Amino acid sequence: MKTKKLINDPKVIIEEMLEGIVAAHPKHVRQVEGAPRAVVALNGPRKGKVGLVIGGGSGHEPTFVGFVGKGLADACPIGNVFASPPPDPIYECAKAASGGAGVLFMYGNYAGDVMNFDMAAEMAGMDEIEVRTVLTTDDIASAPLDQKEKRRGVAGNFFIFKIAGAACDTMKPLDECERLARKANAHTYTMGVCLSPCSLPQTQKYSFELGPDEMEIGMGIHGEPGVAKGPIQTADAVTDAIMDKILGEMKPNKGDKVAVLVNSLGATPLMELYLLNRRVKQRLDQVGVSIHQTWVGNYCTSLEMAGASITLLHLDDELTGLLDHPCDCAMFRAG
Amino acid sequence: MKTKKLINDPKVIIEEMLEGIVAAHPKHVRQVEGAPRAVVALNGPRKGKVGLVIGGGSGHEPTFVGFVGKGLADACPIGNVFASPPPDPIYECAKAASGGAGVLFMYGNYAGDVMNFDMAAEMAGMDEIEVRTVLTTDDIASAPLDQKEKRRGVAGNFFIFKIAGAACDTMKPLDECERLARKANAHTYTMGVCLSPCSLPQTQKYSFELGPDEMEIGMGIHGEPGVAKGPIQTADAVTDAIMDKILGEMKPNKGDKVAVLVNSLGATPLMELYLLNRRVKQRLDQVGVSIHQTWVGNYCTSLEMAGASITLLHLDDELTGLLDHPCDCAMFRAG
Repeated sequence: MKTKKLINDPKVIIEEMLEGIVAAHPKHVRQVEGAPRAVVALNGPRKGKVGLVIGGGSGHEPTFVGFVGKGLADACPIGNVFASPPPDPIYECAKAASGGAGVLFMYGNYAGDVMNFDMAAEMAGMDEIEVRTVLTTDDIASAPLDQKEKRRGVAGNFFIFKIAGAACDTMKPLDECERLARKANAHTYTMGVCLSPCSLPQTQKYSFELGPDEMEIGMGIHGEPGVAKGPIQTADAVTDAIMDKILGEMKPNKGDKVAVLVNSLGATPLMELYLLNRRVKQRLDQVGVSIHQTWVGNYCTSLEMAGASITLLHLDDELTGLLDHPCDCAMFRAG
Repeated sequence: MKTKKLINDPKVIIEEMLEGIVAAHPKHVRQVEGAPRAVVALNGPRKGKVGLVIGGGSGHEPTFVGFVGKGLADACPIGNVFASPPPDPIYECAKAASGGAGVLFMYGNYAGDVMNFDMAAEMAGMDEIEVRTVLTTDDIASAPLDQKEKRRGVAGNFFIFKIAGAACDTMKPLDECERLARKANAHTYTMGVCLSPCSLPQTQKYSFELGPDEMEIGMGIHGEPGVAKGPIQTADAVTDAIMDKILGEMKPNKGDKVAVLVNSLGATPLMELYLLNRRVKQRLDQVGVSIHQTWVGNYCTSLEMAGASITLLHLDDELTGLLDHPCDCAMFRAG
């Protein structure tokens, strides 16, 4: 039996989705001329500004395409569902985002994305566009601390891209934008829990199995194996398991400040996310860490997957200033 | 087998959710003193302003509680999942929202809500707070056109509350706020489609059944029966069925303007919503109706129900001005 979806022909689902996105957000984004699978911010790129290109597979909306707009990302190549975009639209994004001051490529650390973005960076280099790459690796469940470079990028992308976008928007030079993007990534910690899988539009079959009373902590946003599979636990127990890991690695001092993101993987409703957030706040209170700002909702999804993730961004004054910088994107506003 | 949820004790789920909401949005809302199941906007109510109280059952978040904030609703009583709040917290909201110029009660047209809000209005009247009530009835599938007063309020609440909130925020008198709220309701048309049901936290069982390849057009946000149950259709066919009904009733003239809301009932991802929006735009283009602004996402949900709704707000200059008025709420910002 096929899973239920409101779709037309799956072969053109990305093209149709993009048509729907541009129809909804004509003041924020347009498709790049000659590269319909690349989107550029109407008010983003400008002379002297470092361009920010983010991207990856589709199916995680509003990540990535929803974060294109003034103050955040300048352009975004669009891949198939859960698959990297090829080099051409990435290269077109580099050109569309370039203001002569260099371009930053930022995306989650997945082999396919690395290969394609690196090829596009080479192509841009031949046009004298200097490209720097910062991979996001915020998923602390995806590899041990001593192999941090192997970790995947997940919902923490939201904070990392936001900081980098603010650095670019405030006209900092390329070196400084790269440094701040790396710093934001180093300060961002995410861990998720999956309750039930999603299905690709092409197959309409679940891509992995979880037992009827099972959950998996640490599962990746494409169903990559997590760190603990077992019977479903309470919202508090799940939050504690995640917060133990995050706080254990972040090692905050009393008086430190964080930003919080409680994210739905798709089907998990706000009611459940706010239960998780309640416990996040209790845990932070216990260790004397204050919350600068909290976001709760669908920020990095996996189609209709059920589950959630918790992200903390460990703030200092520099990161706080950039986090508070305004942005106005197709699917997100701040400041 | 129970459905999977990230919850603690279902008996205190509303209290815990509210604790999580206030923890996430301390600059926007606080619980009313002595009435923990009532939320008031920090910067909303003020002397001389008509107060706006919206509310209903939980489980539809961000409707209703997420729309509390400056420029939109002043206060919101919180019911159990899919159940009206009792009179007491509604009455406390009337007091908290009152600025001496009267209070507007606005909520979806459901028998339980009508009974409880009416009792609260009487209680407020004894305190010399003048209350006017405007029911939302935007669900065009829920009763025939000649029995419009029997229709239910669904996702179009978003537009109707937004217009009323702007009328109140711009310090219009009670008569005028009521007139504009009624006008917004009369100009708002919603119809939905359901693909799979949700389950209450208390039972963790699905509250109705749909076949494995079935959908139901016109179903209500609590699983109320719709107008057509049948095999699942394409995104375009579903959108056409809904748009035929909406445009047939709205009867726009060429050159008219609308606002569009494509809303997920919970589990349906943005990718599918943007496919629906693509077809909405095509249909509006065909009849020469232009789109003032479009919102796509989770605005009025039914926990983890899969499905979507489409709402059109038929604009004129007066409604457009109020729709564009800024607001800054716990879970929504505009302008």
